[in-house]
Amino acid sequence: MNENIFDAIDETIHAKARLGIMSLLTVHQQCDFGFLRNELGLTEGNLGSHIRVLEQAGYIDVAKTFAGKRPRTTCSATQLGRSMFQRYIEGLEKIIRMAQLPPKQE
Amino acid sequence: MNENIFDAIDETIHAKARLGIMSLLTVHQQCDFGFLRNELGLTEGNLGSHIRVLEQAGYIDVAKTFAGKRPRTTCSATQLGRSMFQRYIEGLEKIIRMAQLPPKQE
Repeated sequence: MNENIFDAIDETIHAKARLGIMSLLTVHQQCDFGFLRNELGLTEGNLGSHIRVLEQAGYIDVAKTFAGKRPRTTCSATQLGRSMFQRYIEGLEKIIRMAQLPPKQE
Repeated sequence: MNENIFDAIDETIHAKARLGIMSLLTVHQQCDFGFLRNELGLTEGNLGSHIRVLEQAGYIDVAKTFAGKRPRTTCSATQLGRSMFQRYIEGLEKIIRMAQLPPKQE
């Protein structure tokens, strides 16, 4: 796309499931895998693949620990992830403002 | 996904290119194919396939006319498209409000 207000829409965040993950990690700071899966209604495989995209972009950290004998996967947003998410949200706000202008008479 | 604020994110509109098309059609009422292609920096094939998705959903009307001898394709949002776009924008606003809450201490 040319340089325009849609450029601020980072495709790494924009996919609906990843927008959900980043939003929840912004509100909750840390979320375990099961919580994200339930909140977003995703399958394990689907959530796992979106988490990998965000991890590879450096937007989230993934920690594997144990709760007793059960493995536990915990995600949190990195500083880069928080700042990219903030920029993404600002981009959405610009689009919303544009979409709410009165229509041009042509 | 479970019933949650992300449900308002209509995937037909959410794809970046289609969000661009719907935003431009909201502002300009009518756009021809070349204008959309330039504004959004898409290839002809790519724009064509996104336009077909929106047309098949009933969100836009596509009219083929002639400007002199040159064929001209003009798009406009339908009433359904406008109302679904409005609902989508309201969904984004909810996500933005959630993302701007102070983080929960856990």
